[in-house]
Amino acid sequence: MIDLSGMVSANSAEPLYQQIVAALRRRISEGSLGIGARLPSSRALAQDLGVARTTVVTAYDQLVAEGFAETRRGAGIFVCDVAPIRPPQAPARPPPALAPPAPGMLLPGAPDPEVFPARSWARCVSRVARMDPLSLSHQADAFGDPELRREIAAYAARWRGIGCSAEQVLVTSGAREALELAMDFLVEGEDIALEVPGFTPTQRFAAARGWTVRWLQAKERGAEVPRQMAKVTLLTPSHQFPLGGTLPVPQRQAFLQAAKERDGWIIEDDFDSEFRYAGQPVPAMAALDPDGRCIYVGTFSKTFSHALRLGYAILPPALVPQFRALFIHPSAGAAITAQRPLAAFMASGQYDRHIRRARRLYAERYAAAAEALAAWPKRLGFFRRHTAGMQIAFHLTGAPADTRICRRAAEAGYGVRPLSPLDPARHSQGLLIGFCQSRPDALPDEIAGLRRIVEES
Amino acid sequence: MIDLSGMVSANSAEPLYQQIVAALRRRISEGSLGIGARLPSSRALAQDLGVARTTVVTAYDQLVAEGFAETRRGAGIFVCDVAPIRPPQAPARPPPALAPPAPGMLLPGAPDPEVFPARSWARCVSRVARMDPLSLSHQADAFGDPELRREIAAYAARWRGIGCSAEQVLVTSGAREALELAMDFLVEGEDIALEVPGFTPTQRFAAARGWTVRWLQAKERGAEVPRQMAKVTLLTPSHQFPLGGTLPVPQRQAFLQAAKERDGWIIEDDFDSEFRYAGQPVPAMAALDPDGRCIYVGTFSKTFSHALRLGYAILPPALVPQFRALFIHPSAGAAITAQRPLAAFMASGQYDRHIRRARRLYAERYAAAAEALAAWPKRLGFFRRHTAGMQIAFHLTGAPADTRICRRAAEAGYGVRPLSPLDPARHSQGLLIGFCQSRPDALPDEIAGLRRIVEES
Repeated sequence: MIDLSGMVSANSAEPLYQQIVAALRRRISEGSLGIGARLPSSRALAQDLGVARTTVVTAYDQLVAEGFAETRRGAGIFVCDVAPIRPPQAPARPPPALAPPAPGMLLPGAPDPEVFPARSWARCVSRVARMDPLSLSHQADAFGDPELRREIAAYAARWRGIGCSAEQVLVTSGAREALELAMDFLVEGEDIALEVPGFTPTQRFAAARGWTVRWLQAKERGAEVPRQMAKVTLLTPSHQFPLGGTLPVPQRQAFLQAAKERDGWIIEDDFDSEFRYAGQPVPAMAALDPDGRCIYVGTFSKTFSHALRLGYAILPPALVPQFRALFIHPSAGAAITAQRPLAAFMASGQYDRHIRRARRLYAERYAAAAEALAAWPKRLGFFRRHTAGMQIAFHLTGAPADTRICRRAAEAGYGVRPLSPLDPARHSQGLLIGFCQSRPDALPDEIAGLRRIVEES
Repeated sequence: MIDLSGMVSANSAEPLYQQIVAALRRRISEGSLGIGARLPSSRALAQDLGVARTTVVTAYDQLVAEGFAETRRGAGIFVCDVAPIRPPQAPARPPPALAPPAPGMLLPGAPDPEVFPARSWARCVSRVARMDPLSLSHQADAFGDPELRREIAAYAARWRGIGCSAEQVLVTSGAREALELAMDFLVEGEDIALEVPGFTPTQRFAAARGWTVRWLQAKERGAEVPRQMAKVTLLTPSHQFPLGGTLPVPQRQAFLQAAKERDGWIIEDDFDSEFRYAGQPVPAMAALDPDGRCIYVGTFSKTFSHALRLGYAILPPALVPQFRALFIHPSAGAAITAQRPLAAFMASGQYDRHIRRARRLYAERYAAAAEALAAWPKRLGFFRRHTAGMQIAFHLTGAPADTRICRRAAEAGYGVRPLSPLDPARHSQGLLIGFCQSRPDALPDEIAGLRRIVEES
């Protein structure tokens, strides 16, 4: 008989069968119940411990499930070949609590978290939680919360000139998911055209899929229609990423016409077009699309907060049923909790007010950054005043090696990013310089510090 | 002079420059201002309209930005080659409002949304919004909300036997993101071993990366250590997906030891181990890992709600700084809004209570489903009573073609899934039959209806 004395007690809060499991596990893993030993019959152990036989049977079932013991038909239950169990050493030496890294000065493409209306947002979440509690967890539709889709359609009409219905809106976990879903669905093993320089994750995604990638060189005002139009063309027409140019209306029309003739598609990545600091936002390319060849992709990461992880696609009407079919079992990756609150925030007008306020603040910062950069000596390089977006692309003409400059800048606390990794075709050298997270009065010093690093590199 | 009469009015709410832009856009796109036409000087148009000259300059800048006109240095501003603009037809024929498809009877692997404690969850969100408003939008750490990470570490100790600190926890947008991050980081261009049958998205991910994939055949109790150990081995030890077996402790130890000798890694996908209906959950493999070779991946999609899109990885201490370095600029894809509320829900004990309640309900449904399936004639096939998880794998032995059966079942309103697409190595035929979303008293009829479809196929 096994000695489990003192290990099983009817007075413990732990169920008896769990105590028996724990006791036998310990005996087995410390080796005092050797490999191949036969466990006592459930009847015998029950008698010995003074417990019901079913209690022991439950304990044995658990040990068999865990692989500490095995049943041999007609012969009984035997101990398996378990090595002595050393517990993980993790608790003994927990990793140091690393401070999250600071974002870095002049980080491009990132909104200022201080500008986010955190308290109004929390009030809005709280109101929805009280008035409409089920909306915070109930995902009625894989395309996203119906009210949020309605608000996005209205917003796209108001700010981007796009006439669409809520049915065309697909809520995603960000622009990137929307872009990848659209590419995956539309390329169909054919070719894709991507701007260079351009968005690296998209380039990597296309390469990993094994598609033929055609590079569209982004010039001062964007890319030109190539002789050979690809099945899918991905453009950033309102504000070329990362150079900043705006694709003129005639070129937009030419792309749309060429897509139609090719039986192809345009994916419009409209990541930060709300932030134009002179005049109004340029209307979206999808607003010029009479034949439904353009899939529009927008995001809340730039205008609102990256932390909410929400973006969207607006599909041409004819594509809606086909995308629906994609989501019969799974759904897009957008978490539900923030969706109805965001719809309420938009419906109340607070979202538009927030964008106007952010645009005003970023316009000041853009102006301060552009003024400071204009003072850099010509031999270092040049930039174009696109008066829009969340970064300035500074083209280096002197000593290149933008990646080395950015590494040195990172050591000095800067978040500026190199241009060349975004340009697999030509490796143009440059710096992407943000300004949205800096106070206007700090920008001259921050940019002067960066200039010293560039000059010394 | 261009005739803009009646199109620009000081009494309109719209800013004057926007009215001028709109009027000129219309004249250009309808063709009454032809290609190459020179626009009047800003001074002349301003005089003509009786507005300030800067108003016209702003309007012209906007038209140039949009590409309706272009500046020729020293010559003036000229109309570009814009085709007549036909607005998108979308609003005229919006796509029909498609009802989201019903989930289908006997859908495998999906929790019952009715079991989700939606009202307590909403109260919890509301309380956090009032007490700690900034936590709903402020992402202090790319690894996730610090309080949620602490709660996950405590939960992993309580339910899965894993000793770890909050520093080791990385919050992700779901198990899949955690698995993909871990694979991407650890494979390093070498090989990966995956179970068959297994989780299709992981198989596709590895194939798209171009890695050498070694298949581990999942037997009744899981996979055996192969002669050639891969750099990374992905296992579902507590409850093999989709067959349901539990990897015995000796095999777990053998895998961990082999990974150590190979200088490789085990990724433990522990997707639904909380749902064991006999005895306790089997402790995690990571709980047996003294040398830090095992990355544990968990999810809230099965236990709580897929709609929150939250999962996590628990990293061995030595990997924490390396994963930290991955997230200096971007962060993992988990949305912030639900994180602190989930931490509060866990800290209050409500989460554990919810799991116990769900386990009780699913245990009844499992028993009803297993009883109904046990009545199927032997010639159709067989299943093993693993008494765990959120689906039963029914192995078809008669006339195979599980995909055809599932298509026919889908037409009859079933959500059952075929086994063969999950098994690229052997194409074993079977049905994955869910039970969590059905009421126990409905299960006999639902399973009888499925039996008729299988018999007729």
